[in-house]
Amino acid sequence: MSLIVMKFGGTSVGDIDRIKNAAAKVAAELHRGNKVAVVVSAMAGSTDQLISYCRSISARYDQREHDAVVSTGEQVSSGLMALALQQRGLNARSWQGWQVGMHTDATHGKARILNIEAKDLRESLDRGEVGVVAGFQGISDEGRITTLGRGGSDTSAVALAVALKADRCDIYTDVDGVYTTDPRICDRARKMKRVSYEEMLELASLGAKVLQVRSVEMAMRFRMPVQVLSTFANEIGSDLPGTLVAEGNEKMEENPVTGIAHTRDEAQITLTGIADKPGIAAKIFVPLAHAGINVDMIVQTASSNGVTDLSFTVGKTDFDRAIKVLTDEKPSIAYKELLSHKNVTKISLVGIGMRNHVGVAATMFETLAAKGINILVIETSEINTSVLIDDEYTELALRSLHTAYGLDTPEA
Amino acid sequence: MSLIVMKFGGTSVGDIDRIKNAAAKVAAELHRGNKVAVVVSAMAGSTDQLISYCRSISARYDQREHDAVVSTGEQVSSGLMALALQQRGLNARSWQGWQVGMHTDATHGKARILNIEAKDLRESLDRGEVGVVAGFQGISDEGRITTLGRGGSDTSAVALAVALKADRCDIYTDVDGVYTTDPRICDRARKMKRVSYEEMLELASLGAKVLQVRSVEMAMRFRMPVQVLSTFANEIGSDLPGTLVAEGNEKMEENPVTGIAHTRDEAQITLTGIADKPGIAAKIFVPLAHAGINVDMIVQTASSNGVTDLSFTVGKTDFDRAIKVLTDEKPSIAYKELLSHKNVTKISLVGIGMRNHVGVAATMFETLAAKGINILVIETSEINTSVLIDDEYTELALRSLHTAYGLDTPEA
Repeated sequence: MSLIVMKFGGTSVGDIDRIKNAAAKVAAELHRGNKVAVVVSAMAGSTDQLISYCRSISARYDQREHDAVVSTGEQVSSGLMALALQQRGLNARSWQGWQVGMHTDATHGKARILNIEAKDLRESLDRGEVGVVAGFQGISDEGRITTLGRGGSDTSAVALAVALKADRCDIYTDVDGVYTTDPRICDRARKMKRVSYEEMLELASLGAKVLQVRSVEMAMRFRMPVQVLSTFANEIGSDLPGTLVAEGNEKMEENPVTGIAHTRDEAQITLTGIADKPGIAAKIFVPLAHAGINVDMIVQTASSNGVTDLSFTVGKTDFDRAIKVLTDEKPSIAYKELLSHKNVTKISLVGIGMRNHVGVAATMFETLAAKGINILVIETSEINTSVLIDDEYTELALRSLHTAYGLDTPEA
Repeated sequence: MSLIVMKFGGTSVGDIDRIKNAAAKVAAELHRGNKVAVVVSAMAGSTDQLISYCRSISARYDQREHDAVVSTGEQVSSGLMALALQQRGLNARSWQGWQVGMHTDATHGKARILNIEAKDLRESLDRGEVGVVAGFQGISDEGRITTLGRGGSDTSAVALAVALKADRCDIYTDVDGVYTTDPRICDRARKMKRVSYEEMLELASLGAKVLQVRSVEMAMRFRMPVQVLSTFANEIGSDLPGTLVAEGNEKMEENPVTGIAHTRDEAQITLTGIADKPGIAAKIFVPLAHAGINVDMIVQTASSNGVTDLSFTVGKTDFDRAIKVLTDEKPSIAYKELLSHKNVTKISLVGIGMRNHVGVAATMFETLAAKGINILVIETSEINTSVLIDDEYTELALRSLHTAYGLDTPEA
């Protein structure tokens, strides 16, 4: 008998029929002889509605009250899921964050989980009951309700799996697994049977939205196997029908690239004609850091006559503030021009195999050049190689690279 | 400095603007130099929506999960009210039932309050903060969320006022007080400045919907003054602009009748041709009691040749089940005919003065007879006299009785 944590996202519990459908998935897992704890998100749309209530009272609202209001979305779906399970004849009950002992710090709105008691829940599971835990929420030392931030229910689920020493955490969502690239863009994208924690962390950080980055970090730290699979597809005849995020990857020698992620969330800023001398980077990036703006993909062109251009990306949501900071700092930085480019996409190759392969980046540059795609910025790390390109080439680049790295071939 | 509990009902917090308006009422009370604890209902409509979610999963749902789901309505409005108060520069926070220590029994869906700790809340109020308590909800010994049943927020408010030893509990609603009769029917209905606990309890029990019966019982038991007033009216220049429900009534000698209530919630059933012998009433009412059906207003006609008719009322929601029980029991009761009448109204005169006045009922019968209104059933108790009449005479009867008992005269 295994203990499985099953997490259902907002679209998976988006209405009463979908909650019933998710309950059927839970029943199937129980019939396989497993114990099950369920973690639920809020019904799709309800969190946005609750946030908009808070915003319409005050733009700068108290995060503690925001958490009290917004956490009700998961409370509702936990109760409804328990009812749907009971309706199938199962012994089920709901657990709120404070009832299950989901202790977090007091950083309301994006709290971090400190520890989970789960003693009562564990006893309940041992009695054969199904526990339905409200995701996304916890309780602070002061006894106030906290929330974990956007997508926090994935993290709730993995943390609960760790606390319960579960055998696996299954994340049910609206896609049936992790793909080699976005299947809406590349129809030859292939569902991976297995991906390593390290690769999944890179893919999630670089734009694959299937799992929240924090949940992957936590799974990796505690070596908790996580399966991504669909609430809606009818998977029959396979023990692990989705994508398993787990230790290592037996085929790490075979292919240098495991998957290709992309994100349109960044914008490029270039400062031209700056002096190529020590201290200039600090004059640019310290004011941005003070403004809480994260900078990514920094590249500096070769110096000519002691003058150079410096290019970097920031999140699109920080773009306007970054422009203001840099305009204010113009006398100090002494740049010639500020150029900006919002219609850019960052495309990232991810693969543990990159560590042992040479020429991975070269293939990327050749492939993009052959299609006439200009590379704006290049960035590499141990297991990823990323380029910034003009947004309108996104689909063409993804498809070309998918083929170039041999990802079109069906997985053996 | 007084401590006031201010309770806002569902229409008073029905949307964001109304929540802001209610927050202004709270601010005004604070500016008068009082400490304030606020109790809120769910935003109008949200409770019905949540109940319908539960029902659409299962008609016979687990009341514990129902409570987990439905209590979120008050959680949302408590957080939003705290935000609205903060937006006015006030130091406010929300308190859920479990946070404030609102201990109830485990009768989920209609739990009874056992005691309220309120230690942390009291300390918060002493620090000058406004506490916004989610009404309608509590916590059981097992740590599960309970709800108090329909209209339970009135009871939450009075109970909290008692626990905090408040000076008064103000119930803000969509009417500006308790009237001598329904002002939508009788335009000469007059807002009472003051009404005794006993009279308010009778009025609430007999159809006046302004306060929940349980909250009046609790106020009476603990002698907590309760004021009913409007969230929407602009009452200026009066310390107690609504109706004060409190000890005694200085003018109890003046008028035998304080107010006239009515309800259309009952239906009449008559069994004809039953034997007038000992035990026959038990044969009728014991099966109804076993079916959980409450019987009101029983009347038996004079016996003729050992045969009599027996008439009584039941709640309209129990009517169909009552008919079925009596049909099943026909062989045992041996009645001739079962007659039923659903279009009836019960009209009740209420007044402590009735104890010391003679002829109160006689005036009622004369007044109704003069208008040609037939009385179907009569029932009297120490401080109320009720009649059942044909529904279509309701307005005529109310207006005639209002005049006959001198209630049209403006209160001195």
